[in-house]
Amino acid sequence: EFRDLFLKLHERDQVEVFHLLYPEKKVKITEFLMPVEFAELFDDMDFDDQLAAFYYLPSTYLQNVFSFIADDNVVQFISQLDEEKRQQALDIMKPEDLQAIESLLKQKLGTAGALMTTELIRVTTEDTADDVIADMRLIGAQAETIYYIYVVNPSNQLTGVLSLRDLLLSPGDTKVKEIMNTQTIYVSQEMDQEDVARIIQEYDLLAVPVVNDDNILLGIVTVDDVLDVIHDEMTEDFHRFGGISSIDEEEGPEGETILQMTRKRLPWIIILIFLGLISANLISAFEDTLAQVVALAAFMPIILDSAGNVGTQSLAVSVRRLTLNEENEESFWKMLGKEFGSGVLIGLASAITIGVLSYFLYGSVTLSIIIGSALLMTLSLSTVIGSVVPTLFDKVGIDPAVASGPFITTINDTFALVVYFSLATYFIHHL
Amino acid sequence: EFRDLFLKLHERDQVEVFHLLYPEKKVKITEFLMPVEFAELFDDMDFDDQLAAFYYLPSTYLQNVFSFIADDNVVQFISQLDEEKRQQALDIMKPEDLQAIESLLKQKLGTAGALMTTELIRVTTEDTADDVIADMRLIGAQAETIYYIYVVNPSNQLTGVLSLRDLLLSPGDTKVKEIMNTQTIYVSQEMDQEDVARIIQEYDLLAVPVVNDDNILLGIVTVDDVLDVIHDEMTEDFHRFGGISSIDEEEGPEGETILQMTRKRLPWIIILIFLGLISANLISAFEDTLAQVVALAAFMPIILDSAGNVGTQSLAVSVRRLTLNEENEESFWKMLGKEFGSGVLIGLASAITIGVLSYFLYGSVTLSIIIGSALLMTLSLSTVIGSVVPTLFDKVGIDPAVASGPFITTINDTFALVVYFSLATYFIHHL
Ligand SMILES: [Mg+2]
Ligand SMILES: [Mg+2]
Ligand SMILES: [Mg+2]
Ligand SMILES: [Mg+2]
Ligand SMILES: [Mg+2]
Ligand SMILES: [Mg+2]
Ligand SMILES: [Mg+2]
Ligand SMILES: [Mg+2]
Ligand SMILES: [Mg+2]
Ligand SMILES: [Mg+2]
Ligand SMILES: [Mg+2]
Ligand SMILES: [Mg+2]
Ligand SMILES: [Mg+2]
Repeated sequence: EFRDLFLKLHERDQVEVFHLLYPEKKVKITEFLMPVEFAELFDDMDFDDQLAAFYYLPSTYLQNVFSFIADDNVVQFISQLDEEKRQQALDIMKPEDLQAIESLLKQKLGTAGALMTTELIRVTTEDTADDVIADMRLIGAQAETIYYIYVVNPSNQLTGVLSLRDLLLSPGDTKVKEIMNTQTIYVSQEMDQEDVARIIQEYDLLAVPVVNDDNILLGIVTVDDVLDVIHDEMTEDFHRFGGISSIDEEEGPEGETILQMTRKRLPWIIILIFLGLISANLISAFEDTLAQVVALAAFMPIILDSAGNVGTQSLAVSVRRLTLNEENEESFWKMLGKEFGSGVLIGLASAITIGVLSYFLYGSVTLSIIIGSALLMTLSLSTVIGSVVPTLFDKVGIDPAVASGPFITTINDTFALVVYFSLATYFIHHL
Repeated sequence: EFRDLFLKLHERDQVEVFHLLYPEKKVKITEFLMPVEFAELFDDMDFDDQLAAFYYLPSTYLQNVFSFIADDNVVQFISQLDEEKRQQALDIMKPEDLQAIESLLKQKLGTAGALMTTELIRVTTEDTADDVIADMRLIGAQAETIYYIYVVNPSNQLTGVLSLRDLLLSPGDTKVKEIMNTQTIYVSQEMDQEDVARIIQEYDLLAVPVVNDDNILLGIVTVDDVLDVIHDEMTEDFHRFGGISSIDEEEGPEGETILQMTRKRLPWIIILIFLGLISANLISAFEDTLAQVVALAAFMPIILDSAGNVGTQSLAVSVRRLTLNEENEESFWKMLGKEFGSGVLIGLASAITIGVLSYFLYGSVTLSIIIGSALLMTLSLSTVIGSVVPTLFDKVGIDPAVASGPFITTINDTFALVVYFSLATYFIHHL
């Protein structure tokens, strides 16, 4: 029978089969899959296939499907719909699911509240291990995880947590209060999703409970959702660091269009062209010096690139440390001291390298001294700029990844040009 | 009593108390914590505190502690020890743990094999749900996770998987073969840890079984370890992208020393200075042009920086896509076409911007045309270079993140200089 064959497929392949069915044929799936089975598939589908299912399957069937999907995942689907479709989706939800879903939809994006599911197992301190297991058999199919069981008081405040492991390894008549862990790790509903991810990682959790200001248990964030958050946030940070704006746009099945790509990348390029006018003006100011010794122009790129490169390195370290919230490991001033120290060492090594190389190319000791000392001064401070700027951004609440590599490079360029041409102008009568 | 007070503390604070104890006093912990309790703490400690515990606690106590720690975590500790201490550690292991630990130590770093634990629950198809739960009560304390139960045949080959959830929600006399999932997702022992992470993320798993070429079940990789892998790999990618070498060095409690920072950053800077000599020579070759129109030098930084910035953007997108193994979403040529298209659009917008700005500053139409058309040509190709280079690196098995931003910038600089000065030389009689 087709049903048996279909169910023998990998879930991944089942999704693929559904994807490949002609739109009109997709409704066939309702004949041989129960809503609870289709719910599993729905979870693993791309948004496009989910939308097709939403569009082509009958609403009575969908109502049951949605009731078997963890409500955080239902909310993730609904929040991608436009206003009209969103209302249609809410209309077919079972009344008992509706309230939870509507309250989740109101949570602020990017917080623990927006990631959580409300379907979890709650017990009281007086329940026994056997009671809990009986409860679990009853409502376990609805809960997103049965591996952690949350202990609440009559006001629904979180008082402890119990792992299924502790439960199973204890005698059946043990009371919850004897085996529960009261040192519960929890997060507030407003906590940033990256901080939630850090807590789950640090404490090796499978899920973390979410509470409001009154310690009332609202839901749980599970580790699978945290993995998706880390994936998205890191992509965003990587792109920002490379100088790409994060504009949220619906990608088609073909990926981003050329126009979407351009819209995300153009802003920084244009801003940096305007900032580059500062360099242009600086160089113009030194036109006399440059006209006398055109060779100075030949080493401009090396000086500017080195300054940019060293700054980008410090930036990469700082941005990563700040986004991981590791900034407390060292005090700000100590970090600056070390960056400066490292900048001086890199500057010394680079100055000697370029000094020797330029002497062989141009045979002028003065030129070598100008280039070498310009590099030393510039690189010593590039490290400091590359680590101070993202830290300041972070202090005033801007994502440090916005201090992108290109941005830092442009700041360091300006400084490097002033140093280079000032030195050259000073030494010009020796050249 | 001190024991009760201590156990009431958060695990995090318990670790802190141990950290703060004078070295000679650390041994006190053995008087009021059982090895199984201390094992929990050991798992959460920094390497430095683990080392202190290893050094100051008696070996009979340690032997028991190690037997309660998941063997992947024991191996992670041991693999950070030097040769002599590593032997000492192996000498105190219980004989029954030793074999597994020695075989894990032989796994290739960065693969599924090196991340896995061998302590898991194995059952056969003929066991009943009640049998499995009884087994679990017996050996559950040793297994790293009891939430997935693995089904093997008499040759120890993986034939299916069962979640504790399925087990608890089924009647006690159900046979394993009736509820097990035979479409098991597994990884091979040699699989790269980043691919393991991707599989766990895609399938929302809590653990994935590791098999050898004969499908023999060797161990499992758990989601907590995968979170740590993602954390480390992303830090590495971010640093590489910023142009920092990944040299593995033991960091002190104070973090990296200035010398360690310098050693990781200097190589790229020096390599890029040598590459920069190409630019220097190119500019020298155009010295006559430059001497006639010194204003050309003023716009060099804008042209070079824009080329570098656009290249870095394409690079950031490519590196992220390649490390996430998303490259199959679009064919290589299609991606190139789109990058080129986007480069042309960015180039056009930038050329118009700089053309207008430079006309206001210098009042020369020819200069504006030179600068504008140089930007257009350069930026159109910078996107292509920024996405081809990491793809080529990836194809030949080099981590694409090694094609760092500074590296791409230098390549694009060279190309930009040739275009800029060629155009300038061609138009020189109009200036
Ligand atoms: Mg799922
Ligand atoms: Mg955030
Ligand atoms: Mg961890
Ligand atoms: Mg969830
Ligand atoms: Mg989810
Ligand atoms: Mg972020
Ligand atoms: Mg540059
Ligand atoms: Mg452990
Ligand atoms: Mg790797
Ligand atoms: Mg997932
Ligand atoms: Mg593990
Ligand atoms: Mg671990
Ligand atoms: Mg990597």
